[in-house]
Amino acid sequence: MSEKIKLGILGGGGDSLIGVLHRVASSMFDKYEIVGGVFNPVWEENINFAQKLGLSENRIYIDFETFIEEELKLPESERIEVVSVLTPNFLHFPMAKKLIENGFHVICEKPLTTTLEEATILESALKKSNTIFAVTYTYTGYPMVRQMRQMIQLGVIGEVHKVDIQYYQGWINPILLDKELRKTIWRLDPKKAGISSCVGDIGTHAFNMAEYLTGLEVKFVLADLNTRYKDNQLDVDGTILIRFSEYVKGVIRSSQIATGEENGLEVKIYGTKGGFNWKQENPNYLYYLTDDKPMEVLKPGHAYNGEVSLDGTKLPPGHPEGIFDSMGNIYYGVAKAIRNESYDSGEYPTMNDGVRGMKFIEKCVESHKLGNVWLDL
Amino acid sequence: MSEKIKLGILGGGGDSLIGVLHRVASSMFDKYEIVGGVFNPVWEENINFAQKLGLSENRIYIDFETFIEEELKLPESERIEVVSVLTPNFLHFPMAKKLIENGFHVICEKPLTTTLEEATILESALKKSNTIFAVTYTYTGYPMVRQMRQMIQLGVIGEVHKVDIQYYQGWINPILLDKELRKTIWRLDPKKAGISSCVGDIGTHAFNMAEYLTGLEVKFVLADLNTRYKDNQLDVDGTILIRFSEYVKGVIRSSQIATGEENGLEVKIYGTKGGFNWKQENPNYLYYLTDDKPMEVLKPGHAYNGEVSLDGTKLPPGHPEGIFDSMGNIYYGVAKAIRNESYDSGEYPTMNDGVRGMKFIEKCVESHKLGNVWLDL
Amino acid sequence: MSEKIKLGILGGGGDSLIGVLHRVASSMFDKYEIVGGVFNPVWEENINFAQKLGLSENRIYIDFETFIEEELKLPESERIEVVSVLTPNFLHFPMAKKLIENGFHVICEKPLTTTLEEATILESALKKSNTIFAVTYTYTGYPMVRQMRQMIQLGVIGEVHKVDIQYYQGWINPILLDKELRKTIWRLDPKKAGISSCVGDIGTHAFNMAEYLTGLEVKFVLADLNTRYKDNQLDVDGTILIRFSEYVKGVIRSSQIATGEENGLEVKIYGTKGGFNWKQENPNYLYYLTDDKPMEVLKPGHAYNGEVSLDGTKLPPGHPEGIFDSMGNIYYGVAKAIRNESYDSGEYPTMNDGVRGMKFIEKCVESHKLGNVWLDL
Amino acid sequence: MSEKIKLGILGGGGDSLIGVLHRVASSMFDKYEIVGGVFNPVWEENINFAQKLGLSENRIYIDFETFIEEELKLPESERIEVVSVLTPNFLHFPMAKKLIENGFHVICEKPLTTTLEEATILESALKKSNTIFAVTYTYTGYPMVRQMRQMIQLGVIGEVHKVDIQYYQGWINPILLDKELRKTIWRLDPKKAGISSCVGDIGTHAFNMAEYLTGLEVKFVLADLNTRYKDNQLDVDGTILIRFSEYVKGVIRSSQIATGEENGLEVKIYGTKGGFNWKQENPNYLYYLTDDKPMEVLKPGHAYNGEVSLDGTKLPPGHPEGIFDSMGNIYYGVAKAIRNESYDSGEYPTMNDGVRGMKFIEKCVESHKLGNVWLDL
Repeated sequence: MSEKIKLGILGGGGDSLIGVLHRVASSMFDKYEIVGGVFNPVWEENINFAQKLGLSENRIYIDFETFIEEELKLPESERIEVVSVLTPNFLHFPMAKKLIENGFHVICEKPLTTTLEEATILESALKKSNTIFAVTYTYTGYPMVRQMRQMIQLGVIGEVHKVDIQYYQGWINPILLDKELRKTIWRLDPKKAGISSCVGDIGTHAFNMAEYLTGLEVKFVLADLNTRYKDNQLDVDGTILIRFSEYVKGVIRSSQIATGEENGLEVKIYGTKGGFNWKQENPNYLYYLTDDKPMEVLKPGHAYNGEVSLDGTKLPPGHPEGIFDSMGNIYYGVAKAIRNESYDSGEYPTMNDGVRGMKFIEKCVESHKLGNVWLDL
Repeated sequence: MSEKIKLGILGGGGDSLIGVLHRVASSMFDKYEIVGGVFNPVWEENINFAQKLGLSENRIYIDFETFIEEELKLPESERIEVVSVLTPNFLHFPMAKKLIENGFHVICEKPLTTTLEEATILESALKKSNTIFAVTYTYTGYPMVRQMRQMIQLGVIGEVHKVDIQYYQGWINPILLDKELRKTIWRLDPKKAGISSCVGDIGTHAFNMAEYLTGLEVKFVLADLNTRYKDNQLDVDGTILIRFSEYVKGVIRSSQIATGEENGLEVKIYGTKGGFNWKQENPNYLYYLTDDKPMEVLKPGHAYNGEVSLDGTKLPPGHPEGIFDSMGNIYYGVAKAIRNESYDSGEYPTMNDGVRGMKFIEKCVESHKLGNVWLDL
Repeated sequence: MSEKIKLGILGGGGDSLIGVLHRVASSMFDKYEIVGGVFNPVWEENINFAQKLGLSENRIYIDFETFIEEELKLPESERIEVVSVLTPNFLHFPMAKKLIENGFHVICEKPLTTTLEEATILESALKKSNTIFAVTYTYTGYPMVRQMRQMIQLGVIGEVHKVDIQYYQGWINPILLDKELRKTIWRLDPKKAGISSCVGDIGTHAFNMAEYLTGLEVKFVLADLNTRYKDNQLDVDGTILIRFSEYVKGVIRSSQIATGEENGLEVKIYGTKGGFNWKQENPNYLYYLTDDKPMEVLKPGHAYNGEVSLDGTKLPPGHPEGIFDSMGNIYYGVAKAIRNESYDSGEYPTMNDGVRGMKFIEKCVESHKLGNVWLDL
Repeated sequence: MSEKIKLGILGGGGDSLIGVLHRVASSMFDKYEIVGGVFNPVWEENINFAQKLGLSENRIYIDFETFIEEELKLPESERIEVVSVLTPNFLHFPMAKKLIENGFHVICEKPLTTTLEEATILESALKKSNTIFAVTYTYTGYPMVRQMRQMIQLGVIGEVHKVDIQYYQGWINPILLDKELRKTIWRLDPKKAGISSCVGDIGTHAFNMAEYLTGLEVKFVLADLNTRYKDNQLDVDGTILIRFSEYVKGVIRSSQIATGEENGLEVKIYGTKGGFNWKQENPNYLYYLTDDKPMEVLKPGHAYNGEVSLDGTKLPPGHPEGIFDSMGNIYYGVAKAIRNESYDSGEYPTMNDGVRGMKFIEKCVESHKLGNVWLDL
């Protein structure tokens, strides 16, 4: 009998890119087998997609409620153990809540919910349950991100005193230029996207990275957002001053109008003894700086890396990791948690990361509305 | 019923890295399901590994002969369609031959065989069959390699007049330094590794890349190999002058003693109208040069890329591809071939690539032994 | 008789690095000859240094007052035409003022003065005179900076809508860590360094770059500075939100505690049609981004560059420019101005750049003290 | 009286780029003053150019013979001490010879002469004299090249076992494409350019770099040159196998048809304990590789660099050096030699470097003509 963890999937059918990412990630360490789920609200598309994946029809359900109901009828040894929630954002909350309450582990796409309030409710629900809950802040899965985190934990760069995280994209620029076009995309529609476009979609990744890497909590934020046009309601750019403590500060810079930038998540962290530079688009190079020695370039797979980094590296040095590997490592972390084999808190992003993310978004928008003032987080 | 192609695997069990690479690659486009195979000659390890993968026991066979025998008994609709051959090099030939002769499609790890003679026999066998045969020259699967190939085909850089391919590794250096240690590894043992270490393992990749990208055949080689120590029999370094025609020349540079280099496959190709630079360790950047315009940096996923490149890119620009993606694209190419959906000859490396590779190795070793003279290929 | 411009130098003697920079820069285009000056307040050192430079003793003066007095006695054809002011910051104002008032052209090191008030007085003095006045914001002399400026002027990236300039150094970190040491350096002593360390020394370069490149004026600033320690009075780090207009914003990031960073002046500018990235430490690469075409990498010396860029490139492409070339180009710009051959306002930084810089520093410090509020500039 | 060395210049007038390079280089360390020379065979241009430089007319001579004659009449304390020979290649030999024989120090542009025979005569002449003789292999002046050399000398990378030097340019490509045009340039005319274009112009730089850096002598060469077209007589591309000893080999790759490449001199050197990568177009980054530690990136001006490297760095880290700095360092090395202050053999390229370079060119051409055979050097 298979030792693999039984995985169910909600959403992610058809041409969904996020669906591909999660399926491949789940396959990477031979830890999961996709058993069933609800890929699409339209039954025919749902069942066709399941067939494409080679799944047994009897584990494909007509809707989420049926999914829960029928799976619970199965003996535990056959039942889906963990569910990936890849549905539109507004469905994350109700689905995740019900899954938790029924004892399923959850891997939830970000943003965790659409409001901080929902996130807090979910957090409470999790506390009462005994389940594993992960939010897929994908970029924390890269081996060199994990290496950077561990080196900071070990004090290699001393006390962290400055954090600068960038997340620059340019994709919304050509859309925004066209007055008609910009009215039509969901990302800029407050009813669908919530209170923020740029901070909500990517600023939150940068924020998560800041806290993940340093192990510190951002205490205050002061946000300056930009909608670029009067008739556009949501931010497409935002610079956020952050403060960890009186003398430890930083900045989060996010944009969707950094014309020509692709997916420019970049990290610069400095401490009393050293610093780090890292760029997501070139994720296998970690630059370690000091006052007086030559810069070092760390790469995945070498014995000089720590365990969590090496755990996420499947091939010898020089075989580049990509974004799939990063998500694969997060799935691997969740698998270890489910099987009680976790040994490090950085193996996957938790409910707390999701809640902090929601809080960050709401406070940034509020800080901006109040005229760029400091708010506590 | 699943639309997926039924995949069998020979070898690649336990901690085999090549096993991980092939399994993940096969999962990437939802085109394959792993059905069975022989992962290990030791039955217990074989069956344990199969269980880890969640495979049904009745498709795990005690040995290759049984595999063939039993699979052939199954109705075609249930039978394994394609087999990945990941066994030690000397087994490639007998296994691939028998698979072809029994109508299985084959995905064979490189080197195709251990001698050119075997390769030629295999080639003949394939001609009589009706099967698809791929040799996994992995690096041709990168989107930007495919883009480069297509641009060369379209004449973007004019007539190719200079080719310089490097494949520098340093991993054998610390082993080679130790007189006792170097006697013990299979890679330097002529009985196990055949006539060449460096050219056979990586020079052949560089050679394949040269012919894949340019669409030209190397006509002559002059090789200068280096065993570094008198007591070491196999080359650990080799520079090979190549000639496509009287005035179109190039060089292949390969090394396993380029201390500190990881997996430095690098391409430089120049033509009458432009040139290309590309590096495997940073595979998402293709540098396109001309006489008088600014250098352009092409990246995966953009609409300016051609179909074969875009086909192998699963996410938007800025989400880095890695080595798994590259192998995934080759598996995808084979899947399209099996389903009669191929539209381009560059979608996977063929038997011909394998045979040319074997010829290249033998001629390089011979050229060197004869005192660095030109030999035709 | 020499056609060269007669150059006098104040300060910059002995081992002064800034002295070397100015002397070499002045030699680069065969436009200047160093005739005399006051290199050092100590006569013996002054005269010895002059001898080292091979200068005639009778043009070396005991002090600034004598310099002015004696030079004015000479016939105009022999008199020093332009004076480089390389003395400590507090001397810039009185020297520059007197030089202007006596009809000498001036090349003044930055900061222009120690207060905005002095700068304004100097500005008035200049208006009444007929002299050329340059402030050496060195980095605007790089050919690719000039190329970027011209492309922005020509509308290549459309309307600028986001500006992000970084200037990160780490040199003060090891000094700051030592409680005793940090009390002893002039850079952190308000009596010697004025109201700011980081913003005053390097933030002002970033600010100048922002206005130089975009041709826009920063209208408002909101600064968050960091002294890092309670007992340290001057900022060693500062993030400054900037606003050009309601929907055109940016950020200036400066630090002297970005541990391990050397001289990390980096430019990111985005407009409606494209964007630019440029890094001072690698000054010969200008990255031009658009929504849908491959990134272009422009380099000095190519015919695709504009005149001001090409004017500052002395050798063919591939011969790297350095910081001396950059300063050399500014000297060249001043020479053209003196000889009435200027054709572009970007050939050297002007009095206005110096005054704006002083204003920027004062407003940033004030914004921070008031609790990080917006101030107009 | 000036302590500066009196410098004369032959050639390099008008718009000569090499003239600019030498003049600026001579000014960089305040060690030279240009006193006179012969800039141009046409008197009017000669004298006008001298005036532009602000030189005294009475030290500008009508021709080389007069230069020698008149300078020798001057008392030694006034006489030109060192002469830069920047004239067309065929004049290097007669001028250098006469200068040496008359006791002048010489800084000679490369190639030293037009034939090996001339070079050998020059070498003998030098042995009889007491003068300093430098050949301007400019690229050995870069601080990080010097640092690499010293680290190799100190055994940091162990015993060197592989050397790969590239010098790729593309400038001749557009000229070569045009059948008429290629007949007209001096570089491809055997009467003017001698026996080689590519190897003679740039291959020789790569060769010099190989010997300069490793301290080893190339013992054998096997060259494969390419004229690209039947009607073109001189090589525009050449790959040269080199051998330092039986098991220490390498390759020199040079091209003028590497379309789009600018001035791509690149070094890869590997030893038993480590390796180096360095690129001329980005000269301030030295990559130091080992088997098992992170790659280190060394940059100029840091205390971890050796004396010869630091001597050639005028400003703190992060202020990029360029090609002028490199030549400046060579002039500085010659100045130290003239003033008996040399402390390292790598401070400037010597007569021996020039003679070796001529030998290399002749042997490469011969090896090619004989059908790509090994010749000793």
